[in-house]
Amino acid sequence: MSSQTDYTPPKVWQWNTESGGTWASTNRPIAGPTHDKVLPVGKHPLQLYSLGTPNGQKVTILLEELLAIGEAGAEYDAHLIKISDGDQFSSGFVAVNPNSKIPALMDHSTPTPTRVFESGSILLYLAEKFGHFIPTEHSARTECLSWLFWQMGSAPYLGGGFGHFYSYAPIKIEYCIDRFTMEVKRQLDVLNRHLETHSFMVGDQYTIADIAIWPWYGAVVQNNAYNAAEFIDAPAYPHVIRWAEQIAERPALKRGRIVNRISGDLADQLHERHDADDFEHRTQDKIAAASD
Amino acid sequence: MSSQTDYTPPKVWQWNTESGGTWASTNRPIAGPTHDKVLPVGKHPLQLYSLGTPNGQKVTILLEELLAIGEAGAEYDAHLIKISDGDQFSSGFVAVNPNSKIPALMDHSTPTPTRVFESGSILLYLAEKFGHFIPTEHSARTECLSWLFWQMGSAPYLGGGFGHFYSYAPIKIEYCIDRFTMEVKRQLDVLNRHLETHSFMVGDQYTIADIAIWPWYGAVVQNNAYNAAEFIDAPAYPHVIRWAEQIAERPALKRGRIVNRISGDLADQLHERHDADDFEHRTQDKIAAASD
Repeated sequence: MSSQTDYTPPKVWQWNTESGGTWASTNRPIAGPTHDKVLPVGKHPLQLYSLGTPNGQKVTILLEELLAIGEAGAEYDAHLIKISDGDQFSSGFVAVNPNSKIPALMDHSTPTPTRVFESGSILLYLAEKFGHFIPTEHSARTECLSWLFWQMGSAPYLGGGFGHFYSYAPIKIEYCIDRFTMEVKRQLDVLNRHLETHSFMVGDQYTIADIAIWPWYGAVVQNNAYNAAEFIDAPAYPHVIRWAEQIAERPALKRGRIVNRISGDLADQLHERHDADDFEHRTQDKIAAASD
Repeated sequence: MSSQTDYTPPKVWQWNTESGGTWASTNRPIAGPTHDKVLPVGKHPLQLYSLGTPNGQKVTILLEELLAIGEAGAEYDAHLIKISDGDQFSSGFVAVNPNSKIPALMDHSTPTPTRVFESGSILLYLAEKFGHFIPTEHSARTECLSWLFWQMGSAPYLGGGFGHFYSYAPIKIEYCIDRFTMEVKRQLDVLNRHLETHSFMVGDQYTIADIAIWPWYGAVVQNNAYNAAEFIDAPAYPHVIRWAEQIAERPALKRGRIVNRISGDLADQLHERHDADDFEHRTQDKIAAASD
């Protein structure tokens, strides 16, 4: 491994299993399952296989929001997928998401179970299934979807780009940190300018666009994700901060954001969620047991 | 600029305007317009502001497919946005897409004009508007949307990651080339395994999922994009090649892929498209004139 500028790539790339940094064990140049394992199936209509990363949080936040407004059909089991252990490469998981990324959803309420993968796709699926958190009026719905797709195409530069090179990579490479910091600051400025004149991403409506964007961009300005708040000058984005703080007060979001979470404060972890009262009955003993 | 491994980031990032490589002039850490300019508006219901990159091609391919099956409402003007000249930072463009990326669409057939941005959002918008190239059956529609979102979340690793570090960056950094090559090969293997048992991304139906994926992943295995076909071992993905070649034969795709294109063979360039017969009447003289 080298970051020398005189590097000449070979004619044909070869897999060097030593590179990669913090997430190296999850990165492979091939797809498909590495082992046979059947996924667990709980009692609820919706079976979620996930981890409490920003992409995982999106879905559990929406599910908790749906339950909070009385949509009983949104009851779900949230099964923990430990990506550091390679759970996403089981035959069962690959059958739900051939891309081996969390979150992945099986909807058992349809005549035959329906698989849904990619966090943005799951948000849209659930919003349309229940008819909430996506506007019905044409131009507002269009705006909501544009911002939802914006998040999907932008966050790779935040997570896989900035977060990786600023925080996770085994070496600090100035060129890469510069490149991705510039882009993340541009994205934050896009949001900041928009939120200067809008309460939420789509006017005064809280939608799946907010739910998609908050776990990534709210985390950077509000929760010092990647320990980068000072580096990216978070206070330069006051409207994003205002919006993030406003959303963070929602009780459903507070529940959703801790589901399948296995890092950070123990109080912010609920490793698996199978019932609404799992949040209330949670104790540190239970948390510890669930982590075994 | 340095790629030394002993680099220590400053406390607060500062904009170094000298870095960036081939696309440096298009990268900024701030959003918003740089100059006042009104966008042109042609005679058709749909006004597209774009460039013939993979993301631009997605939309013009779908529009040509819609016209090919008789959807006259899909008639469009395709205005050239030269991103190397900063056209995407005009006040007019930013009003259509605050993210300053091509493609951006204005639909003038709605009571008030509707803006749509992000290529995936535009594909979904047009597919739903006309009721084509997106399945109506529930599970097939869900699968189509999962793959559409997959493309949006995956291609940044292909274009902004692999393409940048393998081809465009001013320095060759082994760590980065390794990282993004590994991910692109994994993505190609995801597609290859899926297409081994499916004619198209969604069973036997040609949909916006194919239209989204072809310009990016078809280009790599079929057209040697980034001069990387040998490096990534394109022949290792025979089912992607079969699928890409099959789609490439579609007459509508052949038209759509050259709209707003300003590089490559002159025969593959139609800088602006305002009428269906622009394809037939195109001559090298006209092409040359349009590029002024």
